[in-house]
Amino acid sequence: MTFDQQALPHVGDLVIGILGGTGDQGRGLSYRFARAGLRVLIGSRSSERGEAAARDVAALPGVTGEVTGAGNADVAQAADVAIVTVPWDGHAETVAALREPLAGKIVVDCVNPLGFDERGPYAVRVAEGSAAEQTAALLPSSRVCAAFHHVSAVVLADPTVERVDLDVLVLGDDREAVAVVLALAGTIDGVRGVHAGRLRNAGQVEALTANLIVINRRYKTHAGLRITNL
Amino acid sequence: MTFDQQALPHVGDLVIGILGGTGDQGRGLSYRFARAGLRVLIGSRSSERGEAAARDVAALPGVTGEVTGAGNADVAQAADVAIVTVPWDGHAETVAALREPLAGKIVVDCVNPLGFDERGPYAVRVAEGSAAEQTAALLPSSRVCAAFHHVSAVVLADPTVERVDLDVLVLGDDREAVAVVLALAGTIDGVRGVHAGRLRNAGQVEALTANLIVINRRYKTHAGLRITNL
Repeated sequence: MTFDQQALPHVGDLVIGILGGTGDQGRGLSYRFARAGLRVLIGSRSSERGEAAARDVAALPGVTGEVTGAGNADVAQAADVAIVTVPWDGHAETVAALREPLAGKIVVDCVNPLGFDERGPYAVRVAEGSAAEQTAALLPSSRVCAAFHHVSAVVLADPTVERVDLDVLVLGDDREAVAVVLALAGTIDGVRGVHAGRLRNAGQVEALTANLIVINRRYKTHAGLRITNL
Repeated sequence: MTFDQQALPHVGDLVIGILGGTGDQGRGLSYRFARAGLRVLIGSRSSERGEAAARDVAALPGVTGEVTGAGNADVAQAADVAIVTVPWDGHAETVAALREPLAGKIVVDCVNPLGFDERGPYAVRVAEGSAAEQTAALLPSSRVCAAFHHVSAVVLADPTVERVDLDVLVLGDDREAVAVVLALAGTIDGVRGVHAGRLRNAGQVEALTANLIVINRRYKTHAGLRITNL
């Protein structure tokens, strides 16, 4: 196939759960999905913080989808698609605790296993190969994909940005689940979802975020990626 | 700094050596540099094959720079900047053998450590972290950078392509050497060189080539990367 956004499944009726959604990346994605008219649930370890983040996001310009907050387990239970945006530190623990409510569901890992020292960001080696493969190992009954690693939280959260100028690389072994995530990425104005391989090739996509952070610092920007000739 | 191609050093007088330059990537880069008017030396284990590749490249449309071929050691000796485009299989051996002629020089590693099986391409774990770091370990007196991983050999070699639509991510710890490589990338019409971090962040850039190969196969294209908001 050549690139064809139209061939993707309809995702407008899905309930999107953002697990650990009170951080910058989670809020930014929540805003963009809510702006696309999707129903968004923002999860947090504390249901109060999830509710507070949901009120913040719902109040942003252009939101047409309903946004509510709750604890991570309730969000995992209610969501059709769950997006994991927790920090790498605590990733395994958070994911493992949600094994039952996430069974059978599409789970999208967005986590970048990075370290920072005086020379800047660097990729952390993950025993399973990547954060996404760690999630797949912890959630054997879920349909795990990886995506949304390179989105700039600043750009996503900026209401004046009408079109987000980047492609979202989607990794996964379950073709139907991948198609849903590709379509989900495509609900964000300006964004294309691009299937970039199986989960075993997720590690370098996660790690590339270190390079984008370097580029942001060096060139004073909020960099994203586009795939050319597509 | 913001992105500014003009602030980069002049590289028009440098002699560019392409080590292992008879493969598709080496020929493609040789062609683009020769088309930019640079003096290019194509090296091979066999000087005859280097000379044959040089004759092929020199005969392509638009070439204005001189292109000659020789053995890898002679090319390493004569070049100002040496670009390593050998296959991953044999990388360490080829690089280690050129330690003396490459001493003090800028060496640009373009090698992608990939494996292929029935499920497609995948990133190979490298003990040193990346092919570029392996080169840096083997050439302690050289100024090692990494770049040109994601260029499509097919696009580079196509004389009808006037502008190559991609950014070249350049990795390196030696700021002056990095600036030369950024400028070298910028000699190719359409290409920008972007400094994307230190050598320790080269592994994921090399490995990302696996994802681009998947994208090429899935979407039937010759994909490249652009950094957005730059």
